[in-house]
Amino acid sequence: MRVVQKFGGSSVADAASIRRVARRIVDTQAAGAGVVVVVSAMGDTTDDLLDLAKQVSPNPPPRELDMLLTAGERMSAALLAMAINDLGAKARSFTGSQAGVITTSAHGDARIIDITPGRIESALNKGDIVIVAGFQGVSQDTKDVTTLGRGASDTTAVALASALGADLCEIYTDVDGVFTADPRIVPAARQIPEISTDEMLELAANGAKILHLRCVEYARRENVPVRVRSSFSDKPGTLVKVTTNEEGPSMEAALITGVAHDRSEAKITVAGVPDKIGEAARIFGVIAEADINIDMIVQNVSVADATTAISFTLPQDDVPKALAALEAAREEIGFADVTADETVGKVAIVGVGMRTNPGVTAKFFEALAKAGVNIQMISTSEIRLSVVVDADDVDKAVRATHTAFGLDSDTDAVVYGGTGR
Amino acid sequence: MRVVQKFGGSSVADAASIRRVARRIVDTQAAGAGVVVVVSAMGDTTDDLLDLAKQVSPNPPPRELDMLLTAGERMSAALLAMAINDLGAKARSFTGSQAGVITTSAHGDARIIDITPGRIESALNKGDIVIVAGFQGVSQDTKDVTTLGRGASDTTAVALASALGADLCEIYTDVDGVFTADPRIVPAARQIPEISTDEMLELAANGAKILHLRCVEYARRENVPVRVRSSFSDKPGTLVKVTTNEEGPSMEAALITGVAHDRSEAKITVAGVPDKIGEAARIFGVIAEADINIDMIVQNVSVADATTAISFTLPQDDVPKALAALEAAREEIGFADVTADETVGKVAIVGVGMRTNPGVTAKFFEALAKAGVNIQMISTSEIRLSVVVDADDVDKAVRATHTAFGLDSDTDAVVYGGTGR
Repeated sequence: MRVVQKFGGSSVADAASIRRVARRIVDTQAAGAGVVVVVSAMGDTTDDLLDLAKQVSPNPPPRELDMLLTAGERMSAALLAMAINDLGAKARSFTGSQAGVITTSAHGDARIIDITPGRIESALNKGDIVIVAGFQGVSQDTKDVTTLGRGASDTTAVALASALGADLCEIYTDVDGVFTADPRIVPAARQIPEISTDEMLELAANGAKILHLRCVEYARRENVPVRVRSSFSDKPGTLVKVTTNEEGPSMEAALITGVAHDRSEAKITVAGVPDKIGEAARIFGVIAEADINIDMIVQNVSVADATTAISFTLPQDDVPKALAALEAAREEIGFADVTADETVGKVAIVGVGMRTNPGVTAKFFEALAKAGVNIQMISTSEIRLSVVVDADDVDKAVRATHTAFGLDSDTDAVVYGGTGR
Repeated sequence: MRVVQKFGGSSVADAASIRRVARRIVDTQAAGAGVVVVVSAMGDTTDDLLDLAKQVSPNPPPRELDMLLTAGERMSAALLAMAINDLGAKARSFTGSQAGVITTSAHGDARIIDITPGRIESALNKGDIVIVAGFQGVSQDTKDVTTLGRGASDTTAVALASALGADLCEIYTDVDGVFTADPRIVPAARQIPEISTDEMLELAANGAKILHLRCVEYARRENVPVRVRSSFSDKPGTLVKVTTNEEGPSMEAALITGVAHDRSEAKITVAGVPDKIGEAARIFGVIAEADINIDMIVQNVSVADATTAISFTLPQDDVPKALAALEAAREEIGFADVTADETVGKVAIVGVGMRTNPGVTAKFFEALAKAGVNIQMISTSEIRLSVVVDADDVDKAVRATHTAFGLDSDTDAVVYGGTGR
């Protein structure tokens, strides 16, 4: 039996938390498991280091930023190993590089290419508990230290679980698992005991912050069972299970599994676009060249003047870059106007039950209408339906939807605060 | 022209200091030099990390402590590289391991075995400024991260200067160079423009904290010229020059070069030792087994009862260990009593001029006697004479000696505070 356990920054925020987490790890080993632990930086360390970098240079080189930020997980990993040793067990900490996390050289957003866990395997074989600094690796080409992007310690954990053939990857955070909605918005939200990776993927992609999107993708692809649970309680949490498309939902399954929301996106509308073939391709070609990921797209029906409007959503942070790129190409594309709206929010319902229930869309829109929420954009997948609404309407849209689909619990959820990474 | 520059913790204590230091480094490169910079952790970082470790575990494993502490220099190195890039020059930071600092596996006190500066050489060849995290390396056997002991960034700098064939190793600190005495005790102390490595070695070994002892040893062995200067001024500082024994002091040379003092030692006296062959060997065998370095030794003349007393000095921190080791061997050795005195201090005069001037000893003791200072122990080398006195007498002993040997300047030295690492 092998387990990978990942602890987020709030779980190792101070010396007392580190000692508490150490106890849990030692207990897991005592129960007979080989334990590999992935740890994030303590509390606000990463933000503090980013602040320091900004004080030194407004635009620090990504390679050096990675050198700086990786110090955070190095510190928490070493401290956790100390705390475990203090409890009489044996632990050794490893940096991402030492753990064999080989990545691309895209500093700040590197991807894991391979894991060569030779040192981890030999430490496990000696009976040691292995602590790995999350969020970091070493680039295959340049041998420089890289980071995998914010929140990517989850991905480190799943990747290690896959490489080591672990039976389970436990992601410890400050909430009791995955909920049917954010309990800070919907107090009656229920904790979900089991969810498919497909559904988790849609929830993560639509703003549920409990698990990092890339981590879920990795778990799905590599077939790694993931359990999300609280480091502050002994509750079993939520098992994220890889299910094949053939497996339908069980008879008891709810129509939808959860409601996600996201306030981090903005909407850009390009108006007065000549209604001819290839215009949309030129617009999104410009956006792609600026290295911006877009989410939803709506093209309006052509109006009398033979022009159309195209709206799309993108991360708020990318708005200036997108506007600049579009303005630069205005002549070439020949559109009339471009505007950005940052006061939008996305609400999505997710559930494998949607596949076989055509009434879900109507029920969702009806709930939104009753709550007085205007729908700006709509996007669908086989197991997800999302809408863009006014940012001020997000909370009531989430609550109305949660109630309409019968997800409300009789008791209020306990909210610890924070996001677990 | 190649230069290695080392900046201590007080020189990179905050973002503003880091930017100031970056300016100096860029100027050095602009003047035509290939520049390698060794940097310590910012301000009190190392002490803060040690505190954190103590909160987690009263007795942290040395391997994990090294993992933790090395984060400090990693951060300052990355930040300094950012600041340099911000000034338009190119800089790359490297950890000790990446810089090829190969050490023994004695965590917390590792020795440099070899430097394999392949990555540094190729970065220099590309015209980059190289920043190396001081104080750290990687063990040859286990490939684990090691530290070289407190203050050992000086040693990293000299070792790199030697390996890279640098023309000069500049040690930047918060004072203007090496002084004839600690200016906080002797305001009339003078900055020394040039000093031999032999003298510097004696000063460092006798409590002068300006340069780390191992760094001076390294510089002497590897024939690396070292310049100690302030990062807060443009003064030339003190050149520490390797001189052969054949070279005598110049005609103008002062009788002694400087007065050092040290309050970090204690004196242990073993009384009632049977006055027979092999007793001293047994006592110091016990001390050596406890891995304690001793400094001065005095064996009293045998008294009427055919027993003698042996006194020696050692670091204050080692007193409990030494007493325990001696008590455990009391029966075997057969001594009557052992006592420790931590209220002692050491005062030493150093100078190559002593070799040819037999009157120095008398002059020193006369000065101490006039100042009312009682001498407890005496130790000599060819270019150094040191005495143990009461801790309360150290200041007046230093002042009286400094004056007696004509070292007093007409103007008071500027004291910045701090020790530079």
